Amino acid sequence: MKIGIIMGSDSDLPEMKKCCDVLDKFDMEYEIVVSSAHRLPHNTGKWAETAHDKGIEVIIAAAGMAAALPGVVAAHTHLPVIGVPLTSKALDGVDALYSIVQMPPGVPVATVAINGSRNAAHLAMQILGVKHPTIAEKVKTHRAQMAAEGLEKNERLQKVGVEVYLKEKN
Amino acid sequence: MKIGIIMGSDSDLPEMKKCCDVLDKFDMEYEIVVSSAHRLPHNTGKWAETAHDKGIEVIIAAAGMAAALPGVVAAHTHLPVIGVPLTSKALDGVDALYSIVQMPPGVPVATVAINGSRNAAHLAMQILGVKHPTIAEKVKTHRAQMAAEGLEKNERLQKVGVEVYLKEKN
Amino acid sequence: MKIGIIMGSDSDLPEMKKCCDVLDKFDMEYEIVVSSAHRLPHNTGKWAETAHDKGIEVIIAAAGMAAALPGVVAAHTHLPVIGVPLTSKALDGVDALYSIVQMPPGVPVATVAINGSRNAAHLAMQILGVKHPTIAEKVKTHRAQMAAEGLEKNERLQKVGVEVYLKEKN
Amino acid sequence: MKIGIIMGSDSDLPEMKKCCDVLDKFDMEYEIVVSSAHRLPHNTGKWAETAHDKGIEVIIAAAGMAAALPGVVAAHTHLPVIGVPLTSKALDGVDALYSIVQMPPGVPVATVAINGSRNAAHLAMQILGVKHPTIAEKVKTHRAQMAAEGLEKNERLQKVGVEVYLKEKN
Amino acid sequence: MKIGIIMGSDSDLPEMKKCCDVLDKFDMEYEIVVSSAHRLPHNTGKWAETAHDKGIEVIIAAAGMAAALPGVVAAHTHLPVIGVPLTSKALDGVDALYSIVQMPPGVPVATVAINGSRNAAHLAMQILGVKHPTIAEKVKTHRAQMAAEGLEKNERLQKVGVEVYLKEKN
Amino acid sequence: MKIGIIMGSDSDLPEMKKCCDVLDKFDMEYEIVVSSAHRLPHNTGKWAETAHDKGIEVIIAAAGMAAALPGVVAAHTHLPVIGVPLTSKALDGVDALYSIVQMPPGVPVATVAINGSRNAAHLAMQILGVKHPTIAEKVKTHRAQMAAEGLEKNERLQKVGVEVYLKEKN
Amino acid sequence: MKIGIIMGSDSDLPEMKKCCDVLDKFDMEYEIVVSSAHRLPHNTGKWAETAHDKGIEVIIAAAGMAAALPGVVAAHTHLPVIGVPLTSKALDGVDALYSIVQMPPGVPVATVAINGSRNAAHLAMQILGVKHPTIAEKVKTHRAQMAAEGLEKNERLQKVGVEVYLKEKN
Amino acid sequence: MKIGIIMGSDSDLPEMKKCCDVLDKFDMEYEIVVSSAHRLPHNTGKWAETAHDKGIEVIIAAAGMAAALPGVVAAHTHLPVIGVPLTSKALDGVDALYSIVQMPPGVPVATVAINGSRNAAHLAMQILGVKHPTIAEKVKTHRAQMAAEGLEKNERLQKVGVEVYLKEKN
Repeated sequence: MKIGIIMGSDSDLPEMKKCCDVLDKFDMEYEIVVSSAHRLPHNTGKWAETAHDKGIEVIIAAAGMAAALPGVVAAHTHLPVIGVPLTSKALDGVDALYSIVQMPPGVPVATVAINGSRNAAHLAMQILGVKHPTIAEKVKTHRAQMAAEGLEKNERLQKVGVEVYLKEKN
Repeated sequence: MKIGIIMGSDSDLPEMKKCCDVLDKFDMEYEIVVSSAHRLPHNTGKWAETAHDKGIEVIIAAAGMAAALPGVVAAHTHLPVIGVPLTSKALDGVDALYSIVQMPPGVPVATVAINGSRNAAHLAMQILGVKHPTIAEKVKTHRAQMAAEGLEKNERLQKVGVEVYLKEKN
Repeated sequence: MKIGIIMGSDSDLPEMKKCCDVLDKFDMEYEIVVSSAHRLPHNTGKWAETAHDKGIEVIIAAAGMAAALPGVVAAHTHLPVIGVPLTSKALDGVDALYSIVQMPPGVPVATVAINGSRNAAHLAMQILGVKHPTIAEKVKTHRAQMAAEGLEKNERLQKVGVEVYLKEKN
Repeated sequence: MKIGIIMGSDSDLPEMKKCCDVLDKFDMEYEIVVSSAHRLPHNTGKWAETAHDKGIEVIIAAAGMAAALPGVVAAHTHLPVIGVPLTSKALDGVDALYSIVQMPPGVPVATVAINGSRNAAHLAMQILGVKHPTIAEKVKTHRAQMAAEGLEKNERLQKVGVEVYLKEKN
Repeated sequence: MKIGIIMGSDSDLPEMKKCCDVLDKFDMEYEIVVSSAHRLPHNTGKWAETAHDKGIEVIIAAAGMAAALPGVVAAHTHLPVIGVPLTSKALDGVDALYSIVQMPPGVPVATVAINGSRNAAHLAMQILGVKHPTIAEKVKTHRAQMAAEGLEKNERLQKVGVEVYLKEKN
Repeated sequence: MKIGIIMGSDSDLPEMKKCCDVLDKFDMEYEIVVSSAHRLPHNTGKWAETAHDKGIEVIIAAAGMAAALPGVVAAHTHLPVIGVPLTSKALDGVDALYSIVQMPPGVPVATVAINGSRNAAHLAMQILGVKHPTIAEKVKTHRAQMAAEGLEKNERLQKVGVEVYLKEKN
Repeated sequence: MKIGIIMGSDSDLPEMKKCCDVLDKFDMEYEIVVSSAHRLPHNTGKWAETAHDKGIEVIIAAAGMAAALPGVVAAHTHLPVIGVPLTSKALDGVDALYSIVQMPPGVPVATVAINGSRNAAHLAMQILGVKHPTIAEKVKTHRAQMAAEGLEKNERLQKVGVEVYLKEKN
Repeated sequence: MKIGIIMGSDSDLPEMKKCCDVLDKFDMEYEIVVSSAHRLPHNTGKWAETAHDKGIEVIIAAAGMAAALPGVVAAHTHLPVIGVPLTSKALDGVDALYSIVQMPPGVPVATVAINGSRNAAHLAMQILGVKHPTIAEKVKTHRAQMAAEGLEKNERLQKVGVEVYLKEKN
């Protein structure tokens, strides 16, 4: 059981590092490759086609601009593919969002927020949690931690007030 | 094993019927409810919280406008939630798309295309296919059928030419 | 009589501090909490439901991205809810604006400008002014002050000219 | 106690009729006028300035295109002003939304959805409910009715299924 | 010497018929196929890779929504690829435009207007005209015809006036 | 004969200084005031109404966000009003552009580019040139100067080449 | 003294007819031609260059899509040029709006609303009114008529109420 | 055989330098000029008209804002014209994209990505490759190099892992 991560360019790596960090925290094994849909179409297609045989159960694909990568990967596998639209110099990521989310019937991509690399990891964990109860437990634990942290923050805010809270944060 | 479908208004039903039709074709069991995040928040939250215990493994949530439903459902369950942004009278569905896809870290929604109700079904099948090999087989079979139909269409086009093809289609 | 302020994340606090500053200037009591619609749905719902009993008469809710918070709060109370869409890294706040303003019939959110936290305070004062004549007087006084300041600025501009005015400002 | 409704053109009346219908249902008195910010600036300003003296407690202002009306009305009164952006032939109402919601500090407009005339009425009721407990009760009753209707719809859907439900609706 | 036309779905054929009509007018040979980038990735890639060997000198690729087809075709050939973004039910073709035009460095797509299928034909002719002087002549002749027709229309307008001209047109 | 310049806030002055600089270069007299449509509606209306009597022949009105100022000024005068949409923190000036350009029939605003304060000056000169031949001459002279400068730049580029030209520029 | 109207295609004539109708009402002489910036560049440039000599004092230029016409006309004359962005099949006129309003420094186009052909006429009248007092009087008279009609409409609405008013209108 | 590059302003030169760099790498001769469609219309038109006679086979035209240049150049030549939309201070290049890509039937512009100056060079090479087999070879070689570099990057990533790779890159 592992997750496959693919991105279109190594300039996407700083953003996708956050995805890896989340998976590391969950002790989830993953394979991460860089392979462009436009510059390495055969390599990309082959990686997607062989992903299942290598034990990959969910794929995360990230790309910017005319972000064909998630859709192309989805075209080559029956595994669920999570798409991460990335911002580039112009258009603020809307180009990547539309290129990823607007897939035609039959070949969906599970799209997360623009630069939502961390949520791609969380969504992958939830999908794996359908099959693996231990992962579902991890998701639930993480949810409880997030909730606890949120409550703590609010308690601190109530205790010290806005000005002190803002000073402590900076 | 079943899929839960929730939509914010019964005016969403004609669109979501297409989702049901896909699931019916796959002989997949599903439960479909209408419950607004804004008009029935308790009911909606409770449905999401109890979904897993009722055997639901993946949730499809559809809504238009300030489409909070998929995110609210995701907030109440560790199951993967697929969001379907629906067009309404103004803004052509961009409002719903942004309201669904731009989820904060930790609580993702797997967003499909605007009015992409059929793809929500396909994505749910792919997610269930991770766990259930028989479903993965169905996904693969469907992919093969789509491909075969595509090839057939092209063969017909090659054979009869553009004008006859268009006449036959209408 | 007080105002309730809720925001989805403590990263929203620097922006909402400006809202508090306006209310402080008006000597208006307020309660400010941080509670996410997606990470703490129960806490958030309960806060909204009990707001009225704690003497809160108007609610200000601020959030960014898929900004479900104002709508979710509105779903749990009959009090008027003012929504403040916040900018985040991508999409320049349009995502939050659409997620907040496009509410379905029956559960409105009184939306102000993107990052319009100060105007949320002013609008809350105007709403309370309907009930409390002393607050209506404060709103009118503030309007007169704004007008007087505006006239003074123009008088200075007429007196010193564009170049000197710009130097004095910097 | 009454609500003032102002719109920029009598072509806005079919949309604003829905606002009146909601207020009629609540037995709420209102005054409705047509007066353009651009064609009748003095008349519009005077109406806004005298609104409070005529017993108006909340104002609803609707306009399309470069929808200056709500902001201009807000500039002439300390009463809370609810703005309704209307669609016109081009731009799908985004022009009106931006023209209404993006007010500068000190003069807010409580903006509702594009063509959200019914919600303008609901929001006005909620604002009046801060002062008038009987109106707050009406709001709560309406909320309960909406919830009950929503539950009924879902019960019917559960009972008859998707196909029959859709047939009954049409 | 011929032009290759590929589209993602046979629902694109009515629009692409206009492209064929222009090429027919120029007596230009073309091959037209339907093959989806997402449903028939291998077929599509192979068609693009073998295009040059079949005598195709320029490719026109048309698609809607997450319009990966032109970019995917471009990834599989060194021939110039003209992309035609098509409108679909939502987003008015902006999704297709961004998916086609925003290609990464090294793999360009020559993008024409949304639903600009006729201009795809004209652009293909201009590109072929670089190599084939007879085609360049045809382009120049067509330009001259367009100009003559434009002048004639204006002369008619000057002669009969606006009202008669409009009547004659309808 | 003079030009009236009005802006909604003194924070618009750095941008409008560029407008003044153009007018100074043309030795054109102007009056520049700061007066908000929303904070000083009466003052603004009165300034517009008395502009003609003070010898103002064209008005330039600049504002950001819900930029009602140009339209409100236009509502109070029969003089031509040039509107300058300004960028603010969010929405990149699109809000101001739509608020200014989308005026209803009968009360137009002559809109220039976002932050197009210099072009507002040029347009004002062209409008005055209709009446004053000496100003028309100045416009023509400026056009010739722009053309000459453009030609010089190109000659320099041809002479020194891209690399040297870029070094000289920095 | 006359106004020049130019449009890019005779398909723009139904919209520009409304512009002519306004000018006819004002008894204003005009010359109307159809000449594309892209299909008849020389003709278009020459028309613009000779406009002044033919007694044209203001130019109205209308175009859709990549609406270069108004800017190209402005490049060939020192006369003020009013640009009318027209909607076409896709993009709802935003393409034309941006193509017309975003002119570079030195060559402005006075842009009116999308499909704002009537306002182009009104703006032309206001510009001519700077020079010709009789035209300024006509503009003032028209403003007074608009105001009177607006007041009448409101009086009728007050008298007969919403329901009767709507019936009378239809 | 050479390529003609034209840009609207010398402020576009830093971006277009990247286009030149690509052509230099391919040892492709080019002529680069700066000539605005709006400030130097005759010069620009003449350059386009004489381009073919000077041995230019493909034209690259770059401009920002109301980017008429590529279309105007296309209007004056039968050569294929590649358009490069450039970002300016506001609107993030969408204005230039729409102004360039939305050309009317008969006069296409082959549009590349916003700030896609490098791809303009690659597309020009592909177009020339239709005629010149040696250039087609160069394009194929460059494609192979890009692919090889992509594979190398991935091999390095597989070898050293995410953290080391990111350190090496910075």
